[in-house]
Amino acid sequence: MARDTNKRSGRRERMAARKAAQSLSVPYTLRRIGLVSLIDDEAIAIIERNADRILDEIGMEFRGDPETLELFAKHGARVDGERVRFDPGWCRDKIKAAPQKFTQHARNPARSVQIGGNAQVYAPSFGSPFVHDMERGRRYATLEDFQNITRMHHQLGAVNHSGGVVVEPVDVPVGLRHLHMAHTHLTMNDKPFMGAVTAPERARDTIEMCRIAMGRDFVDQNCVLYSVVNTNAPLVMDETMLWALKEYAQAGQCTVVSPFVLGGAMSPVSVAATLAQVLAEVMASVALIQLIRPGAPAAFGTFFSPISLKTGAPTFGTPEGTQFQMCAKTLADRLGLPFHSVGGLTAAKVPDAQAGYESQAQLMGATMAGVNFIIHATGCLEGLLTTGYEKIVMDADRCSAMQRFTQGVDFSEAAQAMDAFFEVEPGGHFLGATHTQENFETAFWMGDMSDNGTFEQWNAEGALWQHDRASARVKQLLDDYHAPPMEAGTRDALDDFVARRTHEIEGETA
Amino acid sequence: MARDTNKRSGRRERMAARKAAQSLSVPYTLRRIGLVSLIDDEAIAIIERNADRILDEIGMEFRGDPETLELFAKHGARVDGERVRFDPGWCRDKIKAAPQKFTQHARNPARSVQIGGNAQVYAPSFGSPFVHDMERGRRYATLEDFQNITRMHHQLGAVNHSGGVVVEPVDVPVGLRHLHMAHTHLTMNDKPFMGAVTAPERARDTIEMCRIAMGRDFVDQNCVLYSVVNTNAPLVMDETMLWALKEYAQAGQCTVVSPFVLGGAMSPVSVAATLAQVLAEVMASVALIQLIRPGAPAAFGTFFSPISLKTGAPTFGTPEGTQFQMCAKTLADRLGLPFHSVGGLTAAKVPDAQAGYESQAQLMGATMAGVNFIIHATGCLEGLLTTGYEKIVMDADRCSAMQRFTQGVDFSEAAQAMDAFFEVEPGGHFLGATHTQENFETAFWMGDMSDNGTFEQWNAEGALWQHDRASARVKQLLDDYHAPPMEAGTRDALDDFVARRTHEIEGETA
Repeated sequence: MARDTNKRSGRRERMAARKAAQSLSVPYTLRRIGLVSLIDDEAIAIIERNADRILDEIGMEFRGDPETLELFAKHGARVDGERVRFDPGWCRDKIKAAPQKFTQHARNPARSVQIGGNAQVYAPSFGSPFVHDMERGRRYATLEDFQNITRMHHQLGAVNHSGGVVVEPVDVPVGLRHLHMAHTHLTMNDKPFMGAVTAPERARDTIEMCRIAMGRDFVDQNCVLYSVVNTNAPLVMDETMLWALKEYAQAGQCTVVSPFVLGGAMSPVSVAATLAQVLAEVMASVALIQLIRPGAPAAFGTFFSPISLKTGAPTFGTPEGTQFQMCAKTLADRLGLPFHSVGGLTAAKVPDAQAGYESQAQLMGATMAGVNFIIHATGCLEGLLTTGYEKIVMDADRCSAMQRFTQGVDFSEAAQAMDAFFEVEPGGHFLGATHTQENFETAFWMGDMSDNGTFEQWNAEGALWQHDRASARVKQLLDDYHAPPMEAGTRDALDDFVARRTHEIEGETA
Repeated sequence: MARDTNKRSGRRERMAARKAAQSLSVPYTLRRIGLVSLIDDEAIAIIERNADRILDEIGMEFRGDPETLELFAKHGARVDGERVRFDPGWCRDKIKAAPQKFTQHARNPARSVQIGGNAQVYAPSFGSPFVHDMERGRRYATLEDFQNITRMHHQLGAVNHSGGVVVEPVDVPVGLRHLHMAHTHLTMNDKPFMGAVTAPERARDTIEMCRIAMGRDFVDQNCVLYSVVNTNAPLVMDETMLWALKEYAQAGQCTVVSPFVLGGAMSPVSVAATLAQVLAEVMASVALIQLIRPGAPAAFGTFFSPISLKTGAPTFGTPEGTQFQMCAKTLADRLGLPFHSVGGLTAAKVPDAQAGYESQAQLMGATMAGVNFIIHATGCLEGLLTTGYEKIVMDADRCSAMQRFTQGVDFSEAAQAMDAFFEVEPGGHFLGATHTQENFETAFWMGDMSDNGTFEQWNAEGALWQHDRASARVKQLLDDYHAPPMEAGTRDALDDFVARRTHEIEGETA
């Protein structure tokens, strides 16, 4: 009996140790397996030549900012009104100043992530005005939702980033949202986050709040914000995005240029043509970043959704979406830029099987393409109009599986386990073998959102569908949450900044 | 107005033409993209050396058939009781006689499939005793279910095969099931199918029924049946499987040797060790097939599910499952054998998000690994204990997406669409562009099980989750079904054969 008790307690200890090890996530994943590309040298040459021709003969419009046009002209681009045309090779030459990889620093240094190289960072969905959970259904999101979602991502080990507009806090006036979002990211999660791009003063406020939280000198010398500007495809950057790009570039913070393309509407109805268009838009925009501040961190982003021939609606989890991503990654590598793209997207309105199929297709495609920063990895429903609470924890589990996948196969002598074959007779089983006992608990990836038990067991536990089990996990995460530590002085200074700026902004709009 | 009407009717005609084109499926897919492998030359050498050592020093047991043991001994294998050991290289040498690729003929020649090379064939799930639909829930399957499922697969263009035991018809006595299954496959579906492996006389009956349906000489000279025998891992082939293998090999029909492995129980708890074990089992068994009839078609099969560390239950959609498959494909290629493995598996009990995530992960892994015959591509629930009606149509839609994916990207001049860029101004849209109008209807893959519309539209249509929409599609398929044509004489002969054999078998068991 004594021996049995010891055995059990030994097992309990191992289980506890394992659980502790799981909750300590690595800040990001370094992939150890090859990339999947679908574009050969001949096709690369075609797409690059087409992009060069688009920039040379058609050009791109940069709207509402004479300073940008002057800057382009000064460096030899051909400016005609707001249209800017580029000689072949001009953009590539400027882009060479951008770093191939860099660190985005988190408030907690243990959470800082590498952007580029063989790193893969998994980040939350971005920009939904609505939120969904199984209890309350779909509704406009509030600041409370924003905070809850940030609390959840703080705890989910497979999510490497706190994201940006994880949902739109529609109960906060538009002009004040960026303050509350940055405050939430900085105080409720210690992973890195994304900056506001909706107005230049909002970008400045976000940078200032990082200075308060992480130190003025540190922020001026390091990348602490990662922000996405979308072109207005085809071939336009509007003034809002342009101003945000300028603010972040001037501050040495990272700007991702991500053409937002509904294929067939905002680009021609093919992968090959859309690749050339997106390459052109990214090259011109990243070249601009390097004119503003040579060496400022930047990334090549894509968001490509083929539209439905039946309804014109965007579609997700499609073969073309993944094909596009795999080709674009190759083009980004040739420019020496980190590659940012989408995972986890779905058009499903609820966390149903469609959501599972489509999100897994997008996430696995992004993972295998070697996307460096996988945005929308968790939470997406309804093509980003809605973020789902349950969907977040369901997706995070799949992120964890993908991260394990990219670590490749262990072919070490220990993993070969040749001794086990001599220990177990043909027709026997390996459950009791020494190798199994020694490696059992860490040998295989273990998710926490799949039910692998018997039907009878599942039925006895209430016959819960995955979204029902996910609801329980959401509640548990919110109950278990503890805010990451922050010095009282820093917290007070952040609170004061938000109060002061709120007062100023309300005064301006009054 | 007249012009508008013409436009609309032109559009209707094009839609009808497109619909007709979709229902005419290609019989199988020839992949045009590269394979994903996760094993380098050094690791290949390790695994092959370990497999050779297992066969040389431990050997494999072939149970219950002295004739097999004599055959092995006669050709130089080392027989000790039922244990057979092999000198390194002996199995490889025998396997050279097997074809690298071959045709499995269907009753309808337009449905015949290539097995091996760069072909990918998607086939139904196999072996479930239970069936599930949203209306009636989970229950034992019957012959009616078997027939319904066969009718559905007849119509689903992305499913290239009628399968084998698509469900167990438990209302039919065990000894008669093979007759009704072969009869159903031959009369209700004109795609190729799989033979019974549960007893040698059942294999013979199945072959005989093919002779009736497709001609005696044709069947004796061609592969018309594709049958899976599982080893009893580790390192055993039992007498039932051995006898089935012998029957099909002697008749020149294809035998797939597929070790069924729950990793950690039936193999050591690692991918590397399981690869060596599976390679050993397949090499010894396929060598036997080539001793029985040199040149008989055979394939390298795998079914690998890591067991849960928490419960010992099999798990699906895991990183290790896909890693294993990608490595095993490389090993099969080196033996010059077609590769057969799993897609679409899930442990989910119902068609929920878990089913979607896991099935998509398995299916996409299998597709990217280049599996030549993807079994369990449609219908799996509960780790193959249950086949779901709704799950079949949901999975088939994803098979279609994967098939499009393997066709790669079109980089032709037409697809580059450079003219469109000169037609559409920056900031404009491409919906009306000539290139879009000419290519819109076939440019992007279009599934039929995803809802891509707006929330409002979806809500107005009843807020149906994917499994609800799938129920409607199932009903529609069963309503629309028309049996493929068969000459009355052939049909009568098949009916007579079933009646005669039923009488004989009932007499034997009385």
